[in-house]
Amino acid sequence: MVDQHARPPTGEGTPPLPSLRWDEPPEGPVLVLLDQTRLPAEEVELVCADVPTLVRAIRTLAVRGAPLLGIAGAYGVALAAAHGYDVAEAAALLEGARPTAVNLGYGVRRAAAAYREAVGRGAVAEEAAGAALREAKELHREDAAASERMAHHGLALLDELLPGGGHRILTHCNTGRLVSGGEGTAFAVALAAHRAGRLRTLWVDETRPLLQGSRLTAYEAAVNGLPYTLLTDNAAGSLFAAGQVDAVLIGADRIAADGSVANKVGSYPLAVLAKYHHVPFIVVAPTTTVDPRTADGASIEVEQRPGQEVTDVTGPRPGAAGGLPVAPPGTVAYNPAFDITPPELVTAVVTEEGVVSPVTGGGIAELCARSRQVTIS
Amino acid sequence: MVDQHARPPTGEGTPPLPSLRWDEPPEGPVLVLLDQTRLPAEEVELVCADVPTLVRAIRTLAVRGAPLLGIAGAYGVALAAAHGYDVAEAAALLEGARPTAVNLGYGVRRAAAAYREAVGRGAVAEEAAGAALREAKELHREDAAASERMAHHGLALLDELLPGGGHRILTHCNTGRLVSGGEGTAFAVALAAHRAGRLRTLWVDETRPLLQGSRLTAYEAAVNGLPYTLLTDNAAGSLFAAGQVDAVLIGADRIAADGSVANKVGSYPLAVLAKYHHVPFIVVAPTTTVDPRTADGASIEVEQRPGQEVTDVTGPRPGAAGGLPVAPPGTVAYNPAFDITPPELVTAVVTEEGVVSPVTGGGIAELCARSRQVTIS
Repeated sequence: MVDQHARPPTGEGTPPLPSLRWDEPPEGPVLVLLDQTRLPAEEVELVCADVPTLVRAIRTLAVRGAPLLGIAGAYGVALAAAHGYDVAEAAALLEGARPTAVNLGYGVRRAAAAYREAVGRGAVAEEAAGAALREAKELHREDAAASERMAHHGLALLDELLPGGGHRILTHCNTGRLVSGGEGTAFAVALAAHRAGRLRTLWVDETRPLLQGSRLTAYEAAVNGLPYTLLTDNAAGSLFAAGQVDAVLIGADRIAADGSVANKVGSYPLAVLAKYHHVPFIVVAPTTTVDPRTADGASIEVEQRPGQEVTDVTGPRPGAAGGLPVAPPGTVAYNPAFDITPPELVTAVVTEEGVVSPVTGGGIAELCARSRQVTIS
Repeated sequence: MVDQHARPPTGEGTPPLPSLRWDEPPEGPVLVLLDQTRLPAEEVELVCADVPTLVRAIRTLAVRGAPLLGIAGAYGVALAAAHGYDVAEAAALLEGARPTAVNLGYGVRRAAAAYREAVGRGAVAEEAAGAALREAKELHREDAAASERMAHHGLALLDELLPGGGHRILTHCNTGRLVSGGEGTAFAVALAAHRAGRLRTLWVDETRPLLQGSRLTAYEAAVNGLPYTLLTDNAAGSLFAAGQVDAVLIGADRIAADGSVANKVGSYPLAVLAKYHHVPFIVVAPTTTVDPRTADGASIEVEQRPGQEVTDVTGPRPGAAGGLPVAPPGTVAYNPAFDITPPELVTAVVTEEGVVSPVTGGGIAELCARSRQVTIS
């Protein structure tokens, strides 16, 4: 990986660097990622010229967020094909890079299927690589369009649930442009509410251990001029108790066939708090996040990450190795990356195809049937 | 403040430095505090020779924890009296150093009353100062004894609620020797369970923003050889959902007359999670924590601390100023130090005088009537 481009963080109004882009310099095609581990301190692009480099970027969370992982996976297949690597092997490597986000495998499988289909009809290697790249670009475009439609459906739902406007929305982790080919999932809804003059405040959970809320969502909120306030994940309870939260909006990394939602650890406690305080708990995710092959929440594999993410705090420190140790040496930590929220705690799932509420397996299946997704699994 | 003594952290089996001690070197009496902001990286003692230095140590959390604040406040009055400062003024300064922990004011008032009583019966300054110091030492002894009795009552309650043993206890913030004249409040109960061979694991919430769980509770657990596992506050929900928590044990900074409990921010979400999962939620605190003059939860003043504790992460970095910035410049943070848990979410309050369950104002008042506390308010 080479730092191709580094600059101080984008101010309000400056066009931000894209989260991910395909480039074709003379040395051959590359996938260029905005390194999310270094935000908000600085904007640095990582250049991936091969699949192992991309897999490392996925594992270290330089690129992250369910929809964006799908796009990255599809481009990764295109990258392997363009450089003449073994596409099936590359696809397997990419698909296994992280276990929970279903979109990653979806993107990989789509691009790999396009490649195989081209090979199957006798295309030469270059043509087949082109087919994989076209599919990746198509997924990228589809995801951007899905963002727009989720924002539209989500805002309509907020207006229905909270007719008074002046929404005070609590969000967790990061769900904006940094996770998507477009403006994101849950964050895109908050942004639409802001543009419509109906967002009073966005409460941003810091989202330990990796602080995607303080590092990334606060950064995206600042860039977009949203009214936002940061809080520790612990302080959300006080906001609920004080009646300061009108709705919770989060994304999803995988939605099981029964409507169970895997999302960043800390989502489930928010769902329980929202239920206890009669506050809508809304999940915003494209239909590519639904995995019809995963029957229920108990069947979702939850990625366990290194305990060092808990015992050491890592901030956006350019070039620094390791973090700031905060626990005694030898401390063992439990560090699941995600948790599972059962459908009965979810008020609604907003997808690009519309809204499911109440959340049932049948409702989820119906929306998926309208989308392209079911043909690719 | 002078660093009188610094050493690497205590290993298992090494006697730890006391959290607080009165000393009388030739230059005059001092109160010596173990600086909790530098744990677990190193054990450093702070020497307070006057009240403003002690107030600063209280505000920066070098000394913290409700019962220990009471003891520190009482010694602070004795310090002012011994040096011939204005005792009433010193008492007011100390009492106002932090607003939520009721014990601080209680300790201050007890020592100040002893001083005034001595003056009232014609004692010379030195004798009156001696009376204040005797009262501080008496409170110190009482608090150590209260720890023992809370541990006894708490363990009996656990055995009653969880007859199978093999307790998996979740705790939040820090409630051990570092907050007390003895072995602490909630932590002392876990320690008693460990010594009785009935503790399977202590789940330690890291407790953002100031990480008292990872820095202090993990340190105390390690020193005492307890089986413990650290987690982000976000991950507690996953443990509840997996049936991995048998009971929650926390301390308290103030208990209102109706049984509402102010404790470290993040306690209330745990109470809601515990309720939702039918897990006992147990508060362990001496009767000095009960404030009969505060009618209910809504009347408890919650300290709002600087947003920088959220936007920057501070670890135990000896001598370092500031923290590790994790949010974009200009980010505003909401940072309440405490939250309020209503009595209906508290399974039991364990005090040195016994257990209240269910938690009612009448039950709380009855226990307090047995203790010395009511005569001093």
